Amino acid sequence: MLFKNITMIDEKYDVIKNTNIVVEGNKISYIASTVPEEYCGEVYDGKNKVAMPGFFNTHCHVPMTLLRGYGEGLPLERWLNEKIFPFESLLTDEDCYFGTLLGISEMIKSGVVSFTDMYSHLETLIKAIDETGIKANISNSYLKVGENDDYFKHNSYKETELVRKYMKKSNNDRIRADVSIHAEYTSSERLVRQISEYCNSTDMNMHIHLSETEEEQRICKEKYGLTPAEYFLKCGTFKSKTTAAHCVFVEGDDFNILKENGVTVSHCPSSNLKLGSGIAPLKTMLDYGINVTIGTDGAASNNNLNMIEEVNLAALLHKGINKDPLFLGQKDMLNIACLNGATSQGRENCGCIKVGNRADIVIYDFDKPHMQPAFDVLANILYSAQASDICLSMIDGNVVYKDDVFTNIDMEKVYYNVNRIKNEKLALLRLPSDS
Amino acid sequence: MLFKNITMIDEKYDVIKNTNIVVEGNKISYIASTVPEEYCGEVYDGKNKVAMPGFFNTHCHVPMTLLRGYGEGLPLERWLNEKIFPFESLLTDEDCYFGTLLGISEMIKSGVVSFTDMYSHLETLIKAIDETGIKANISNSYLKVGENDDYFKHNSYKETELVRKYMKKSNNDRIRADVSIHAEYTSSERLVRQISEYCNSTDMNMHIHLSETEEEQRICKEKYGLTPAEYFLKCGTFKSKTTAAHCVFVEGDDFNILKENGVTVSHCPSSNLKLGSGIAPLKTMLDYGINVTIGTDGAASNNNLNMIEEVNLAALLHKGINKDPLFLGQKDMLNIACLNGATSQGRENCGCIKVGNRADIVIYDFDKPHMQPAFDVLANILYSAQASDICLSMIDGNVVYKDDVFTNIDMEKVYYNVNRIKNEKLALLRLPSDS
Repeated sequence: MLFKNITMIDEKYDVIKNTNIVVEGNKISYIASTVPEEYCGEVYDGKNKVAMPGFFNTHCHVPMTLLRGYGEGLPLERWLNEKIFPFESLLTDEDCYFGTLLGISEMIKSGVVSFTDMYSHLETLIKAIDETGIKANISNSYLKVGENDDYFKHNSYKETELVRKYMKKSNNDRIRADVSIHAEYTSSERLVRQISEYCNSTDMNMHIHLSETEEEQRICKEKYGLTPAEYFLKCGTFKSKTTAAHCVFVEGDDFNILKENGVTVSHCPSSNLKLGSGIAPLKTMLDYGINVTIGTDGAASNNNLNMIEEVNLAALLHKGINKDPLFLGQKDMLNIACLNGATSQGRENCGCIKVGNRADIVIYDFDKPHMQPAFDVLANILYSAQASDICLSMIDGNVVYKDDVFTNIDMEKVYYNVNRIKNEKLALLRLPSDS
Repeated sequence: MLFKNITMIDEKYDVIKNTNIVVEGNKISYIASTVPEEYCGEVYDGKNKVAMPGFFNTHCHVPMTLLRGYGEGLPLERWLNEKIFPFESLLTDEDCYFGTLLGISEMIKSGVVSFTDMYSHLETLIKAIDETGIKANISNSYLKVGENDDYFKHNSYKETELVRKYMKKSNNDRIRADVSIHAEYTSSERLVRQISEYCNSTDMNMHIHLSETEEEQRICKEKYGLTPAEYFLKCGTFKSKTTAAHCVFVEGDDFNILKENGVTVSHCPSSNLKLGSGIAPLKTMLDYGINVTIGTDGAASNNNLNMIEEVNLAALLHKGINKDPLFLGQKDMLNIACLNGATSQGRENCGCIKVGNRADIVIYDFDKPHMQPAFDVLANILYSAQASDICLSMIDGNVVYKDDVFTNIDMEKVYYNVNRIKNEKLALLRLPSDS
C-alpha cells in the first residue's frame, strides 16, 4: 500500500508534510517526498490525514473488558471480593474469547498496535489475537496458589508453555509469551523464586504488578523489611527483562533498582486515579532514566482501554502536579507511548515510522472540529484527538481497521455475545439483568 | 419529537429503561413507559440509545478556538506575550465569527447545550450562537484598560449593552449578557468597583478569573494584604451572582466567602494541569457547599472544548488526589456537570430531564465497543464514553446535531475559513504557514 501525499510523524517525532510511505509485506519499504515511479499497488489518499506510529499498551487484562462498570461505587476490598472475583470465577474460555475481541476492538480504535496482557485462558487469547491481527505479549497470572504449590504443576505454567509452542509453529511473531507474577501480596516467596527461575531460564519477559497501593507497600515493608521492588530483586525476578505495572508508591532505592535492572514501568494513570491509589512519581522515574511506558490496565478499573485518553491524561497530569507546563513535552510523551512500549515488549524494528521498520501505522483524520486549526500537529494528536479520529490502522502491514469497520472482527456477533454473557452471569449470580 | 423506548437519565440521575419522552416546542411535555395514544409526530427509535441532560460548560473563550495549539512548548509568560497576544490583536470580527462556529461545533459534539463565555467581539458571537442553536451567557472581558479609564466609555460596556438590547428584542432567551472582570491582576481597583456597581445595578451575572495561579495569589496578598476572593468581596463584586473560573489557590476564609456569597466555581482541570497551575481543592469546596461546575477554558490552553473529557478528568482526578475511590460518585459528578451549571447561568427549568423542563437532550449511542457491556449506564457515560458516541443533540427542542451533521453549521465552510485565517495571520506575523 502507498500512503500518498500524507503528513507523517517520523522516528524523531518530527512532522513531515507531503510525504509518501510505501508498505511491502509487513514492513515500511520507502518514505520520500516523491511517489516511486514503478509503484502500481493500492493507493491511500493522505489529504488531511496524519500517519502516526501505533501505541503500545503495556498493561492490560483484556478479558476483563467483560466486567466494564460492574460493581461500581464499592470500596476496593468489597468490589474485589463481592463483585469481581465471583464474576470472574464464572468465566469460561468462550466468554473470555468474546471479552478479548471486545477489548481488542476498543484498543485498535484508539490506536493500539500491540498490548501486554496479564490474565488467563491463554489458548482463547491466542485465538482472538490471531484472528484480529493485533500484536500482544500475553501471560498467565495465576491467583489463589497455595503456599506449597508447585508452579510447574500449575495451570499457569501449562498455559505459558502452550503459548511458547504456538510461537514456535507460528509464521509470525505477533503473539509472544511472557511470564507473570501477579504481585508480591498474592504470592509466596517460594512461588516467586520458582517462577523467576523459570522465566530466567528462557528468553521470555516478566510482567508484574508493583507498588500499586500504599497498603501493599506498607505491608510488604512490615513483612519482609523490604519494599516490593527490593523483594523482587532479592528473589531474582529482575534477572529477566521485566515490566512492572503501576509503581505508584516506589520510593528511595526502588528507583535505582528499577533503573539498574532495566525494569520498564507501565504507568496506568486512569486506573490509579479511579481506584483512589494516587499518582505515580513519573518525573523521578524519568530523571533516573527508567524506561517509562503507558498502560490502560483492565476495563474493570479504568473503565476503558482508550490509549489516546491515557496518553493525554499522562501528558496533562504530570505537568499539573509538577507545576511545569514544559514537562513531558510532545516528543517525550510520544516516545513513552510508542517506542518505549515496543522496547519493553522486546519488539525490535517497531515503535516508530521509518524504512525497514514493521508497518504499524495509524492514520488520523484531521477533518474534525477539534482537530482544526492544525498549527501544531503533535499538539493536536496529544491534546485534542479522540479515538474516533483514527480512520485506519495497519499492523504488520495488514489493514485491521478502516473507516469504522474491522477487517476481521464481526462486531454485531461480539455485541450479541457480550450481552448474552452479561445476562447469563447475572442470572447465575441471582442479580437482576438490568442491575 | 418522540424519543421512543429509550433509556433515560432522570432528574435524580437514576437510569430509567424503556421509557418514552415527548418534546413539544422548547419543552419536555411527557415522560412515561407507554407512548401517548394521540401522538402523531416524528419518532426517534431509542434502541441502544441513552437520553442524557446536556452539559453546561461554565468557562470558555470560544473565539480562541482559532488559536488551538499555537505557541506550544513555551513558558506561560512568553507564550502569552510572544504568541497569544500578538495573534489575538490581529483577529477581526469575521475571524471571531468562524472561530466561534468552530468552537460551538466542537462543544455540541461533546454534549454541551450551553456555555459561559468571556471574550470580546460580542456582536459576532451573537450571530454565531444564534445561528447554531446553542445557548450561552456571554461577556466582554476588556484587557489593557488604563488606570483612569472609564468603564462606561469603554468598548466592553458598549458590547455588554448591545447583548442586553439583543436579549430584549429576541424571541428566546438562549443568549444572555453577563458582565466580566477579567481578573484582579489585570484590573485597577477603580475599574473593578465601577464594573461591579454596574453589574449589581442590573440583573446580569458576573464572570471572573479567580486564584488561577500561585503567583496571582501571592502578588495579590502582597499588594492588598487580601486574597483575590477577599479583594473582590471588598470591591462589591460578589453582590452580583458570580461565576469564578479556576480557583486553584483559594485558601482559608476564601471558601467561606465563596459559599456565603453564592459564588459558583468553574473547575477547569485540563487547563489548570496543562498550564502547570495545579489542581483546585474540589473536595474542600464541596464540603463547604459551594456550587461547583465544570469548564473547558479556551482551546488555546486546553487544547479542546470536549466536555466529556473534562467531566471524566474531574471524576478521576479528585478520586486519585483524595485517595478515595468513592469520592465524586456518579450522580454527584453529573449534577456538577449539568444542573449546577444551569444554576450558575441563571437558567431555570434546565439541567435535567423532566416534564416541564427545557428540552436540552443529548443522545448517546451505546453500540460501541467501549460502551459494552452496560452493567452500569452512568459509569459508561462518565468513564467510558467519547464525544463520538453522541448521535443527536437537542437544545430548547431543536435538533442542532444528528448523526455527524449539524443542522445549522456548514463545516466545510468553517474549515476553509479557519485555515484561511490561520495562514493569513501567520503571514502577517511573518511566520511560515506550516509552523
